[in-house]
Amino acid sequence: MPVAEPDAVRRLESRQPIAYLLASVRGVGQVDLQPGIWTGAFILAGLWAAGWQIGLFATLGTLISTATAYVLGVDRSGIALGLHGYSGCLTGIALVVSLGHHPATYVLAVVGSVMCTLLMAALTTLLAPYGLTALTAPFCLVSGVMVVGAPSFGRIWHGAPKAVSSTTRGGTGISWNDLWHGFFTNVSQIFLVGDWYVGLIMLVGLAFAGVRVVLHAAAGSVVGIVAAWALGAPTALIAEGIYGYNAVLVAIAVGAVYLTGTVWNGAYALFGAAVTTGLTASLTSFFEPFGGHTFTWPFILTTWVFMAAVPLLPRFRRSG
Amino acid sequence: MPVAEPDAVRRLESRQPIAYLLASVRGVGQVDLQPGIWTGAFILAGLWAAGWQIGLFATLGTLISTATAYVLGVDRSGIALGLHGYSGCLTGIALVVSLGHHPATYVLAVVGSVMCTLLMAALTTLLAPYGLTALTAPFCLVSGVMVVGAPSFGRIWHGAPKAVSSTTRGGTGISWNDLWHGFFTNVSQIFLVGDWYVGLIMLVGLAFAGVRVVLHAAAGSVVGIVAAWALGAPTALIAEGIYGYNAVLVAIAVGAVYLTGTVWNGAYALFGAAVTTGLTASLTSFFEPFGGHTFTWPFILTTWVFMAAVPLLPRFRRSG
Amino acid sequence: MPVAEPDAVRRLESRQPIAYLLASVRGVGQVDLQPGIWTGAFILAGLWAAGWQIGLFATLGTLISTATAYVLGVDRSGIALGLHGYSGCLTGIALVVSLGHHPATYVLAVVGSVMCTLLMAALTTLLAPYGLTALTAPFCLVSGVMVVGAPSFGRIWHGAPKAVSSTTRGGTGISWNDLWHGFFTNVSQIFLVGDWYVGLIMLVGLAFAGVRVVLHAAAGSVVGIVAAWALGAPTALIAEGIYGYNAVLVAIAVGAVYLTGTVWNGAYALFGAAVTTGLTASLTSFFEPFGGHTFTWPFILTTWVFMAAVPLLPRFRRSG
Repeated sequence: MPVAEPDAVRRLESRQPIAYLLASVRGVGQVDLQPGIWTGAFILAGLWAAGWQIGLFATLGTLISTATAYVLGVDRSGIALGLHGYSGCLTGIALVVSLGHHPATYVLAVVGSVMCTLLMAALTTLLAPYGLTALTAPFCLVSGVMVVGAPSFGRIWHGAPKAVSSTTRGGTGISWNDLWHGFFTNVSQIFLVGDWYVGLIMLVGLAFAGVRVVLHAAAGSVVGIVAAWALGAPTALIAEGIYGYNAVLVAIAVGAVYLTGTVWNGAYALFGAAVTTGLTASLTSFFEPFGGHTFTWPFILTTWVFMAAVPLLPRFRRSG
Repeated sequence: MPVAEPDAVRRLESRQPIAYLLASVRGVGQVDLQPGIWTGAFILAGLWAAGWQIGLFATLGTLISTATAYVLGVDRSGIALGLHGYSGCLTGIALVVSLGHHPATYVLAVVGSVMCTLLMAALTTLLAPYGLTALTAPFCLVSGVMVVGAPSFGRIWHGAPKAVSSTTRGGTGISWNDLWHGFFTNVSQIFLVGDWYVGLIMLVGLAFAGVRVVLHAAAGSVVGIVAAWALGAPTALIAEGIYGYNAVLVAIAVGAVYLTGTVWNGAYALFGAAVTTGLTASLTSFFEPFGGHTFTWPFILTTWVFMAAVPLLPRFRRSG
Repeated sequence: MPVAEPDAVRRLESRQPIAYLLASVRGVGQVDLQPGIWTGAFILAGLWAAGWQIGLFATLGTLISTATAYVLGVDRSGIALGLHGYSGCLTGIALVVSLGHHPATYVLAVVGSVMCTLLMAALTTLLAPYGLTALTAPFCLVSGVMVVGAPSFGRIWHGAPKAVSSTTRGGTGISWNDLWHGFFTNVSQIFLVGDWYVGLIMLVGLAFAGVRVVLHAAAGSVVGIVAAWALGAPTALIAEGIYGYNAVLVAIAVGAVYLTGTVWNGAYALFGAAVTTGLTASLTSFFEPFGGHTFTWPFILTTWVFMAAVPLLPRFRRSG
């Protein structure tokens, strides 16, 4: 059960500029599919702890895409839950990480955040007949298109600021140090951050969303590590969280959000977490020739497949 | 308001072979989403002015795909509007431009034009639930598949006749000469033609479709140039129209065809024109490793996203 | 008309463990879209004749994915027809052929077969609104993902055991020997097997499914050879069945399963068989840069397009 929010929060929400800020904080938490204000606040704190550029671009992206939803007249209840902020949050981070801190990156972050809100609306239209949601696909599409296109443009491209994660080959021996690092970086790497303490701060935030959420996040992280190790992934990538962040998201989404809390559903969610770990390598190989980025595509595709299958599999049951 | 067609045209349409020819002329205009007979006639004249091979293959493609629709019993009202001719028109041009003028190219143009009509029907089935239309996707799919597959076949492939457009790096300084060339080639490049006077003839044709259509086409062309310049695209490609033809199509489709004539809708269409200009580079990079071609994919994807978003964005309103 | 099955088979189906085995045998036949028990038995015999590893992995894959459907509570009537076994059958074969006979391949075959059942359910949900079925797409997705991802994992990858088919250039002269080899390998290559006698055994099995099925299979094989030769494909690939297996499947699916037995429908199916032959080269070029595999994608995409077009083309009529 999520931690109750103080009545003060509820009352503040009726005042326009405050409602906008609260919706934005919730938007940061919605990256992990959690609308709680405390979860969003802790995650946002973690992002600023990862560096001021990441914190700034995450904040800007969330604020702009949420504001775009207001301006375009999107249904208010969805905005209030933060549903139009999370893709902008991730897009801001992805752009400053991939393109570096330049004036042009600010312009792209603004355009990208606006596009996130448009893609959120478009994907909602396209997925509604199947009972699926857009998840982080607006972010992956917008950031992917921009990262792939950037090197063609002289005023955007200043060279890659740092090598973005890729599936390289390497040693597969694993130490205790690798394991606990990987456990936390799996949580922070959802936001393209590889620092274990950021993952720890975010897990505390997820604990405010309830025991079930944080347990699924932790279990997903463990499954991601075990699956990657069993397949023989390079240890360095496991320790950086590259192989496990999608597993965390799948475990939360399938196990703690979309399905009810049965044993079968839990097993299904963790099986999905293992599958998405393997899928991470395949998609990285797919994106490599044209310079695309894996981002959270493994999570999105796995969750869509697993949830689209549920109506024909009576063993599993949707919540809500 | 489009220029009224003489009553004579209406009367001719009741006679079978004439109806077929009129539907084909309208089909040429439907590449720019315009069913008017004058628009189609001017654009067709522009294509023959670009060279007899381009004119011939455009004509053949349109005639064959329109005839296929008749033979397979497709609804007559759609055929009369030219909806089953425009993808064949573009496919004919794309094949002779990409594969050269050989006997085998005629055979492929026939098969490709038939496939365009099948794909038009298939995509209409798949997109109908979302209120979207196929746009030029049948052309992009058929021509893309043929261009990618051709080098594998000894009787089809005679080497690339000329380098097809690609996003190369180059100088970004721009002159008045580049600007007005780009303004017109943005219109002709929709048909894979890089001659400014062809674009001028086509713009005259679009003027017959009404002030609103030609103004959106012109504005889209300007936005395409400005966006490409601001991003830092190579000037040579801007002047050839490589970066702007999708912007022209998006501006016409979103601004003058699918949405009503409000200020918000116009701004939305021109924002789409800017977005599709950037998307052009990303898709070109995506297609490069396997030898695919960008064609009008940026226009198609941008228009699908922008139109699929409209039902959830009350700020914008569909026409009709 | 298919050969009648003995009453004994019907009676056996009421007993649980036997029903499971019968459903699995039918599952092998469903790769060729045929639920008949004799067809499945002959094809299974052909697979064991191709080698014990292929026979074993095909059997394991079918048994596991069928069992998964039982365990997850999938509708029994579909399971009895073998609809949840065929993708597992092909996945088992594809994995042992692509990754070699290692302990890890057994583990992947189990996971892959389970995933086939999940993807079958997911695709059924997604395709139902259009009246389309999943065909062999679960197999292509699962096996494709695993083959692309495998080289990234130290405990999975032992180097490619043999070069998987690719569109290479080569001589285009054709002999009688090439022709009859190709005729049979087109049938066996559906199962990634290049031995002509395996194709012969499978054709005998298809004859038990009725004259119409085996005639369409044979005609599809001939069209595949003629189309590949006319395009100028390398003779060696035609003789190995690389260019014709999709044509066989399209001819059976469109001509003998989904549409009624009219002349127009037959011509449509054989036109589809020719089209899918050309598409094979394009998709192989598409998959090459990232190490993907063509598998039966040409069949799937061609059949989806041709069947999605039918509702708007009154010339053709669906069966059932």
